[in-house]
Amino acid sequence: MQKPVGVGILGAGTIGGTLIRRLIHEHDVVRSKTGLNFEVRRVVVRSLDKPRPFTLPDGVLTDRLDEVVTDPAIDLVVEVMGGIEPAGRVVLAALEAGKPVVTANKELIAARGRDLLAAAEASGVPLLFEAAVGGGIPIIRPLTETLAGEPIERVLGIVNGTTNYILTAMADGDPYGAALAAAQELGYAEPDPTADVTGADAASKAAILASLSFGTWVPPDRVYREGIDRLDVIDIAYAHQMGFAVKLLAVAERRPGGVSARVHPMMIPAGHPLAAIRGATNAIFIEGPSIDELLFAGPGAGGEPTATAVLGDVIDAARERLAGAQVAPRIRFAPGLLVDFGDIPTKWYVRLDVADRPGVLAQIAGAFGEAGVSIRSVWQEGRGDRATLLLITHEAPERAQQAAVDALRDLDVVAEVAAVIRVESPEP
Amino acid sequence: MQKPVGVGILGAGTIGGTLIRRLIHEHDVVRSKTGLNFEVRRVVVRSLDKPRPFTLPDGVLTDRLDEVVTDPAIDLVVEVMGGIEPAGRVVLAALEAGKPVVTANKELIAARGRDLLAAAEASGVPLLFEAAVGGGIPIIRPLTETLAGEPIERVLGIVNGTTNYILTAMADGDPYGAALAAAQELGYAEPDPTADVTGADAASKAAILASLSFGTWVPPDRVYREGIDRLDVIDIAYAHQMGFAVKLLAVAERRPGGVSARVHPMMIPAGHPLAAIRGATNAIFIEGPSIDELLFAGPGAGGEPTATAVLGDVIDAARERLAGAQVAPRIRFAPGLLVDFGDIPTKWYVRLDVADRPGVLAQIAGAFGEAGVSIRSVWQEGRGDRATLLLITHEAPERAQQAAVDALRDLDVVAEVAAVIRVESPEP
Repeated sequence: MQKPVGVGILGAGTIGGTLIRRLIHEHDVVRSKTGLNFEVRRVVVRSLDKPRPFTLPDGVLTDRLDEVVTDPAIDLVVEVMGGIEPAGRVVLAALEAGKPVVTANKELIAARGRDLLAAAEASGVPLLFEAAVGGGIPIIRPLTETLAGEPIERVLGIVNGTTNYILTAMADGDPYGAALAAAQELGYAEPDPTADVTGADAASKAAILASLSFGTWVPPDRVYREGIDRLDVIDIAYAHQMGFAVKLLAVAERRPGGVSARVHPMMIPAGHPLAAIRGATNAIFIEGPSIDELLFAGPGAGGEPTATAVLGDVIDAARERLAGAQVAPRIRFAPGLLVDFGDIPTKWYVRLDVADRPGVLAQIAGAFGEAGVSIRSVWQEGRGDRATLLLITHEAPERAQQAAVDALRDLDVVAEVAAVIRVESPEP
Repeated sequence: MQKPVGVGILGAGTIGGTLIRRLIHEHDVVRSKTGLNFEVRRVVVRSLDKPRPFTLPDGVLTDRLDEVVTDPAIDLVVEVMGGIEPAGRVVLAALEAGKPVVTANKELIAARGRDLLAAAEASGVPLLFEAAVGGGIPIIRPLTETLAGEPIERVLGIVNGTTNYILTAMADGDPYGAALAAAQELGYAEPDPTADVTGADAASKAAILASLSFGTWVPPDRVYREGIDRLDVIDIAYAHQMGFAVKLLAVAERRPGGVSARVHPMMIPAGHPLAAIRGATNAIFIEGPSIDELLFAGPGAGGEPTATAVLGDVIDAARERLAGAQVAPRIRFAPGLLVDFGDIPTKWYVRLDVADRPGVLAQIAGAFGEAGVSIRSVWQEGRGDRATLLLITHEAPERAQQAAVDALRDLDVVAEVAAVIRVESPEP
């Protein structure tokens, strides 16, 4: 009979609770499929008195974080408590003690991943985090293993289910506030939705995707970030009329001389595979010279799918542990330049509230031209002495687009720059 | 400096040639990303005189198969020659000699995979075959690693690009013959398209997907198989009117008491993610209780994408080799029942050429009823004294559907059972 693998789990919230239930209730399924005999030996929680949806033998539940490190019966540590500290300290200690660690914590990996991976390498144990990006979608392993030989060019991801749910509702006509309220009611959005709607959660994931795709470590605070909280439903409707969907995208891109990672709303052609991703679903789209285009789509969050990804990592780490391998690192980081967002070529959709009189368009076109931006298309909607102008520009550096729009604000004929959204579309 | 990893490659066709070019030309890219220093030391080809799109040092090209096994400078064997023999013999010998093997050969893995995996386990070396299903789409590793803890319920795959290209052209109005000719002209279909259009290629992949998803080995000759070579474009048009797309699907399914694998054309709802997969693209759709639904889509064939998957495996195998691991098996096979296809519940679309007179529908409904099949919807298109009836049945065992259609053939009012296609749709 296979020697049991002692598991210590930090955190018993949605993901932790689901994982514990499955390690207990599906013990025999996992065993017959993998030959592994898991035993949950420590579960670290903040409060011992809270009721739990699982029953553990006496002494398993503890509120002392370090027990998963010090207890020799713990072969493998799972961190699903979230946040950077104290999670980071315990994960590091576990790795230094030679224990494999599995985590679902994107914030921790984005902030400290390079150091933690180095500690794992020094100890020859795995640090696995499949669940940190895309929840139940297998993406980390394909990126770092199957595509290890591919010079990936770009990764586009819908990596936050809450905002995709809200954007889907807005595409169906709901204003932002109503869409957010619906997402909160259904449990897709937290009571405090800041981390989701400002793009902070997506930025952690963008940093991880860029780091793993290009082998250049991208700290999360170097990810340009813009959320969906200032999007107006009218622009989503206009985008739709022009043949685009609006998505909050995490973009990781290889550029001449460096890499770039950013998160912002983006208009993408209605026929793009990411345009069809509705509701809380996540999707990751990878472009490379040999693989052309790959799409991964599935549940990006939720206890069950995320616990599946964590469980897959736990099984993988246990196999390696039992095989007695000194685990070789799956990814190496080389120094590399992070390209300034101002240098990245983008296209912009700009909605302007302008005076409706002759010569207005000439002034506006002049402002763009002086900034070195050319206009690709203009739509006008008149309404009395005012008009709404919808412009889409050709590609130009982000800095030039910004300068053009700043110049527009100084024009007398422009009452308001009502909205700007970046546009993904092939040049005609 | 990292010690070089000696690679021996069996076959230098489309995939092998691309792999060799990349191991040589992208040597430094792969090295900076992975730290691995590959050297192509043997390439086994049938004829030494043929011109090649790559240049190798003297003595690397050979026509002696066994050199990759006997030469101690070969650390790792890549088999991309295809076919069951002699590939199977050499792969087995390499594994028995303790050399990791990477193969893209679905036919070999479907036919001999269980024995080859057992030989790999006995030697403690990896046998990897990411490219055997879905070409450049990472699917084997997600199935066997990330989803190792998921009790997968069903896998639906568009796993043959040639037939999906033909079906896409038929959906756009081309008859089968013209669509096949176009696919041949573009190089998507072989001059002899039999393996693709009869579903034989897809059946190998269905066998592999079922075996890995459920841990019960499914031999390819136990996969029920029906190709696209008898599909009429008119039924694809009717399906479209009813809100369905027609796809050739590989289906691997867990059933009460066993597993099932099959390949046949299937009508799927137009809103299903697989319905949007056009042209030579492949896609695999996985259903499980925790992950709900996962979709993987990308290039299913072609030298470049397939070579990327092979290269990912080569990197993975080399890492494990350098780590000195006794490789633990990633999948265990337990005995299990293969459910007879006759017992599988299916729904059928049936197109009948019937006499257009009162009482016809009653006779037809009677024949279905006697076989235990109830009819869900009927469309009629009259044309003089004949009419076309399009029926969709409710779910019933395949055997009952077959019996009902056999009974129809005996009815005087039925001139012809012109077409049957299985239907995937939620029960109303």
